[in-house]
Amino acid sequence: MRRHLALLEQALDAFVAPGAPPDLAAAMRYGVLGGGKRLRALLVLAGQQCVAAATPDGLAGQELALRAGCAVELIHAYSLIHDDMPCMDNDVLRRGKPTVHVQFGEAAALLAGDAMQALAFELLTPGAVEHDGEPAGPHSTMDAALVIQARLCATLARAAGPCGMAGGQAIDLAHVGKPMAADALRRMHRLKTGALLQASVVLGAQCVPQASAQALTALSQYGSAIGLAFQVVDDVLDATADSATLGKTAGKDAADEKPTYVSLMGVEAAQAYAGQLHAEALAALAASGLADTRLLGGLADLVVRRRH
Amino acid sequence: MRRHLALLEQALDAFVAPGAPPDLAAAMRYGVLGGGKRLRALLVLAGQQCVAAATPDGLAGQELALRAGCAVELIHAYSLIHDDMPCMDNDVLRRGKPTVHVQFGEAAALLAGDAMQALAFELLTPGAVEHDGEPAGPHSTMDAALVIQARLCATLARAAGPCGMAGGQAIDLAHVGKPMAADALRRMHRLKTGALLQASVVLGAQCVPQASAQALTALSQYGSAIGLAFQVVDDVLDATADSATLGKTAGKDAADEKPTYVSLMGVEAAQAYAGQLHAEALAALAASGLADTRLLGGLADLVVRRRH
Repeated sequence: MRRHLALLEQALDAFVAPGAPPDLAAAMRYGVLGGGKRLRALLVLAGQQCVAAATPDGLAGQELALRAGCAVELIHAYSLIHDDMPCMDNDVLRRGKPTVHVQFGEAAALLAGDAMQALAFELLTPGAVEHDGEPAGPHSTMDAALVIQARLCATLARAAGPCGMAGGQAIDLAHVGKPMAADALRRMHRLKTGALLQASVVLGAQCVPQASAQALTALSQYGSAIGLAFQVVDDVLDATADSATLGKTAGKDAADEKPTYVSLMGVEAAQAYAGQLHAEALAALAASGLADTRLLGGLADLVVRRRH
Repeated sequence: MRRHLALLEQALDAFVAPGAPPDLAAAMRYGVLGGGKRLRALLVLAGQQCVAAATPDGLAGQELALRAGCAVELIHAYSLIHDDMPCMDNDVLRRGKPTVHVQFGEAAALLAGDAMQALAFELLTPGAVEHDGEPAGPHSTMDAALVIQARLCATLARAAGPCGMAGGQAIDLAHVGKPMAADALRRMHRLKTGALLQASVVLGAQCVPQASAQALTALSQYGSAIGLAFQVVDDVLDATADSATLGKTAGKDAADEKPTYVSLMGVEAAQAYAGQLHAEALAALAASGLADTRLLGGLADLVVRRRH
């Protein structure tokens, strides 16, 4: 996992954003480099590795998975930049640093986020444009790569869009100061944070063209379970941890009267629910038909047992 | 062209955005439906049609071109929504209607724009996700479709991203109240409006897998010329037309001391430059090797001879 993190930081540094106007590149780099758990990208890389291990050379899709990992981090980072803006959550600090709009101005933050979303899709489609005008043979290696790229773009677009992350944020926005039923809360979180976490694992598996239907279905179920678990644990930590451990203000949900799993079911039941989702995630891995899923198992443990 | 416009409005109405939370869908629909010249989408459809006419059945890529047309309109519309926000241009009216943030609030406008960008890539990749887990045969029709989809995603992402539209907006932002040399002005416009206009024609051609390298190169040159012509004409109209004809405040560029082609070279030279770019566009069509490029020729006329 440490090797994966190092590769990711190096790739993000290289990909964001050569050739862009310097002011824009600076805001984008500030927003995405040097910070964050990189959980989503680690899920991409672990998904790819668990599936690729079952292929003859064991390396299938590695390079593309690194790009896909950077792509999901760009989507996540852009959503944080826009979320922090005054018209949304109006946060001035993130990970102890001034937020992007505080550092670069609101207009630059808006543009940096917009550019990051487009760059995510650029990263998923290397070589597809350069190849224009010189059509490869109908069954070429390049064509095989483009088939994978289209699947990745489809998965990321759906996870980020109106029926994914952006949709979840809209549900959140529509319920500010209003009560929320358990069903609506679950739907909001499934979209707002769950969709991208789930997509991350699927993207990793999709980088390996030999991935079996059984493995893809199982990894998607794993992703769904840990996506929900991530949010349940977030709610529990907000209610039980202190601000110093958390690195952000604790008890903010209750103070804001935000509906959470804790407010719906209490701390103990929420903890039990997180444990149940963790078990579901591991069960999905066991049913995947993949020989070695330890990396994904380790990430599931990390999501549920984290202290901040 | 009238038939294309009707098809487009119908497709946008259908694609934006079933399944999304209702508040989000309402803001997205308000931002993209019922207004605009649809120049970009018409370029996609005309590009596809001019290339497809050279294929045996003459219908290649029609369905996908309609989706790609909607995708570029979504990108264009999201950029206007974000541009109109208080932290950017702070415009309260567009095409005589309150702008999205005035009608729905700033947070909703921000989210609607974000969701529209992701939806654009969703529209370009139909069937790619549904197909997961049931890998098609290596040389299947589905695979051939995905190869095209990857190229479309690559082209749209580059045109919208940090080295395309978003990059051009960043250059614009960095030069507020500062003088701008002719080179910088040209680069800004090539990115800010030119990249998406050029990409539109290319996207249309890319929908037709049989497109020749010669045709793709020529259509890309055509797109580059009319993309620049579009901006030169915009500057001339701002300096010469009255507000009533223009449908927006005339003389705004000079009042804002914005660098334009008119401020750089004067009205007459700018008009002559637009004429020269128009001729370049037509010359590219003549060199395309395509039998019938009247639709694209007509759009070039429209761009240069428009009165508003």
